[in-house]
Amino acid sequence: MTSSIREIAAAARQASVVAAQLDGETKRRVLEAIADEVEKQADHLKAENARDLEAAAANGLSGAPLERLALSDKTLAGMVGSLREVAGQADPVGEITEMKRRPNGLLVGRMQIPLGVIGVIYESRPNVTTDAAALCLKAGNAVILRGGSEAIHSNRALGETMANVFSRFGLPEAIVSVVPTADRESVSEMLKLDEFIDLIIPRGGESLIRFVAENSRIPVIKHYKGVCHVYIDAEADPKLATDIVVNAKAQRPGVCNAAETLLIHHDAIEECLLPIAVALVNAGVEMRVCPRTREALAARNFPQTKIRAAKVEDYGAEFLDLILAVKVVDSFEQAIEHIRAHGSDHTESIVTNNHRTAMRFIREINSSVVVVNASTRFADGQQLGLGAEIGISTTKLHSYGPMGAEELTTRKFVVLGDGQIRQ
Amino acid sequence: MTSSIREIAAAARQASVVAAQLDGETKRRVLEAIADEVEKQADHLKAENARDLEAAAANGLSGAPLERLALSDKTLAGMVGSLREVAGQADPVGEITEMKRRPNGLLVGRMQIPLGVIGVIYESRPNVTTDAAALCLKAGNAVILRGGSEAIHSNRALGETMANVFSRFGLPEAIVSVVPTADRESVSEMLKLDEFIDLIIPRGGESLIRFVAENSRIPVIKHYKGVCHVYIDAEADPKLATDIVVNAKAQRPGVCNAAETLLIHHDAIEECLLPIAVALVNAGVEMRVCPRTREALAARNFPQTKIRAAKVEDYGAEFLDLILAVKVVDSFEQAIEHIRAHGSDHTESIVTNNHRTAMRFIREINSSVVVVNASTRFADGQQLGLGAEIGISTTKLHSYGPMGAEELTTRKFVVLGDGQIRQ
Repeated sequence: MTSSIREIAAAARQASVVAAQLDGETKRRVLEAIADEVEKQADHLKAENARDLEAAAANGLSGAPLERLALSDKTLAGMVGSLREVAGQADPVGEITEMKRRPNGLLVGRMQIPLGVIGVIYESRPNVTTDAAALCLKAGNAVILRGGSEAIHSNRALGETMANVFSRFGLPEAIVSVVPTADRESVSEMLKLDEFIDLIIPRGGESLIRFVAENSRIPVIKHYKGVCHVYIDAEADPKLATDIVVNAKAQRPGVCNAAETLLIHHDAIEECLLPIAVALVNAGVEMRVCPRTREALAARNFPQTKIRAAKVEDYGAEFLDLILAVKVVDSFEQAIEHIRAHGSDHTESIVTNNHRTAMRFIREINSSVVVVNASTRFADGQQLGLGAEIGISTTKLHSYGPMGAEELTTRKFVVLGDGQIRQ
Repeated sequence: MTSSIREIAAAARQASVVAAQLDGETKRRVLEAIADEVEKQADHLKAENARDLEAAAANGLSGAPLERLALSDKTLAGMVGSLREVAGQADPVGEITEMKRRPNGLLVGRMQIPLGVIGVIYESRPNVTTDAAALCLKAGNAVILRGGSEAIHSNRALGETMANVFSRFGLPEAIVSVVPTADRESVSEMLKLDEFIDLIIPRGGESLIRFVAENSRIPVIKHYKGVCHVYIDAEADPKLATDIVVNAKAQRPGVCNAAETLLIHHDAIEECLLPIAVALVNAGVEMRVCPRTREALAARNFPQTKIRAAKVEDYGAEFLDLILAVKVVDSFEQAIEHIRAHGSDHTESIVTNNHRTAMRFIREINSSVVVVNASTRFADGQQLGLGAEIGISTTKLHSYGPMGAEELTTRKFVVLGDGQIRQ
C-alpha cells in the first residue's frame, strides 16, 4: 500500500522531533553506516538504476541528461564520499553562542536548532537523494525527497537502503522519506502542507522552480539561474586571467556556476585579451563580443570568423553552453554597474593583482559568492567545504549561496535567569 | 507633490547601495545625530503628535490604543535611548568569519552583508519609526516605513527629522522613507514591488499581518500571536514561581510576550499552587482552571468564586488580558507535549531548581525564546540586548525570535584564490 503525501509528511513531522534530539555521535554513526550500506548495495543500486536508464532511453533521453541519471561507479563513490564528509563534520545543532550577561544578571544566548521538516523537489540526479538526506539528518531535520519520475527506481532503492540503516539504529524510517510516486499532483499537494513542512528546496530546471515558487504555501529557497561574470581588472596577470576564464566557461559549461560573461578592463586588453581569446577558441568557445573587443582583436590579427557580435540580450543570458559574452569596460565602476544590472546574484570573480581593487570587489559585489583570482566553478557546496550542498540560494533571506547542513538550522534565544522579573 | 510608492521604493533601492557601503563610524555618528535631533525637536514632534491624538480622540479612540499613539516625554526618551544604544553597537556589516583554507589553497569565508531594502508596515506606535530606521541603517539597509493613518503627522515629523540629518551628512534621504499616505492601496502596491524591496516586516494586529502575508510577493517575517507558557516544575522555588507567574501574566497583559497558560507539575501543587493563586487574584487575574487545579484549590480553602472552569479552547488562547489558563500536568513530558500542541513558538518559561530538567527544557522546547527561571516578558529585543527590535519572528526561516540589526543582514561567501581552477 502506498502512503499519501499527506501521511508521509505527517510521519516526517513526527520523526523530526526524534531527529532534532539526536546527539552528534549518533548522527555521525548513522551517516557512516549509510555510506557503508551504499557501498555494500552498489550492485543492487546499479541494477535498479539500469531500469531507470532503460526506460529513459526508451523515452528518447540521451546525452547529458541521460548521463546525469546514471549511477556510475564514479557517481556512487562521490555519494559515499559526501556521506562520509558530512558524517565527519562538527554537529551544527545545539551550540550556544554569544551568551552574554544583561545588566539584571540574565544570561542571554543563541542556540542552533533544526528547522524541522525539509521538502526537496528535484530532477534526475540520484546523488541528490543521499546528499540531501545526509545534510538534513546532520542538521537534525526530517526530509521528504521527491525526485523525478525518470529516477524513481534508483531513488526508491536508495530510500530503502537508508531506511534499513535507520531501523537497525532503532530510529524512525520517516526521518528520510522518498516519495514513491512521481506525479505532478503529489508535488502540488506537498506544497500545501505547511502544517508539516517548514521549507521547500526545489532543484532543477527553471520551469520546475517557477512552478514550485508560484504554488507553494511553504517558504521556498531557490535560485532560478546563474549568470556568472569574470572581470579582468587593469592589473590582472595574463596567465591567471586566461586559465580562470577558460576554466570558468569551458570546464563544464552546462552548470549554473559556469561563467556567462567576460568583462575586461580596457587597460587589460593589451596583455590579456589575445591569450584569452586564443585559449577560448581552442576550448571550442564561441565569443559574442562588443565592438571594442572586435576592434582590439582585429588589430591583433585574431580571425574575425571566430567571433560574433554580441546582441543586447547576450549580456545577462544564461547560455549553459560553450558561448561567452565579452565586453570591454572603462573602469572598475563600470564593471560593478554591469554586474549589478545583468547579474543573477550567483557568483562573480575578479582577476587582479591589486589588493585595494580586490577588497573593493569583495565589498561592493553582493552576489552570493564573490571570488578573487579563482574560477567561478568553485561556487559549490563540496568545493567550498560544506561536504555537499542541498541547493544554492540567490535570494538573501535565510541563506545565500550554496547551502550545507548549517544552513538547514536556525537560532533560538536561550535565557537563563535566577528569578528575574520585568520592572 | 507626493511621490508614488513605486517611486519611493525605487529611490530606496538606489539609496540602499549607498547605505550598504557606509562604514561603521559614519553609521554611529548619523544615529547619534538623529538622537540629538529628536531631543532638539521634542516640542515640534509633540505638537505634530498632538494633531494625531486629537484626530484619534475625535474618532473615538481611547485607553490603551490612544496611549500607544502618544509621544510622551517617556516615549521620546525611550526612542532616544534606543537610537543611542543601536548607535553604540558593533557594526553588524563587513565581518568575515569562518575563513578556512581548502586543500587547494583557496581561502573560503562568510561575509556579513545587508539585506537591501526593508519594508515595515505597522500601526500606531510612533517609536517603531525611529527603532526600525535605526536598526535598518545600522545593518546597512534602506527602509520604507509605512505607519498607520492614525500616526501620520507624528511619523511624517519623525521622517523629516531623520531626513534633515541625512542631508547634513551628504547622504540620500531615501535611506529612510516615511510613506506619506496611509491608505490600504499603497500597502497592496508596496507588497508587489519585489524588484525593489527584499523583505517585509508587518507589526500590528493579526488582521493586518494576515493581510500582508496573503498579499505579499516579497518574503515576509512575522508572528501572528504569542501564546506563552510558564511551566512550574516539581522542583520549583515557590517564591520564584509566584513572582515569575504574576509578572509574566500581569505586568503588562496586553502584549505578545505575556503568559497565557500556566502549567504546574502535580508535585508542585503542595508548595506552589496556593501562593500563586493568591498572588494572581491580588493582581486582578482571572484563572480558568482544569478540574485538578479546582480540586487542589478547594482542598486549600481557596474561594471557588475566584476561579472559573477552563474550556478546551482556553488552552492555546491569546487572551491579551488579565486572564490565565491553568492546568496540572503529571510529568515534564506532559508539559512539553502540551506546549507543542498549544503553543505559538513564541516564548516559554520553566521554573525549576533541577539543572537536568532545565537543560532538557532548553533542548526540547524549540520556541523562539526559551527561558529558565525568569519572566516571559523578557522576550523583547531591548531586554535581550539587541538595543531595539524591528519585529519578532515565530517562523524559523531567516530569523527566529526578536530581531535586531544583525537579523537584518545575511552572509555571502568570499573566496580568495591565487589562480585556482577546478579540476
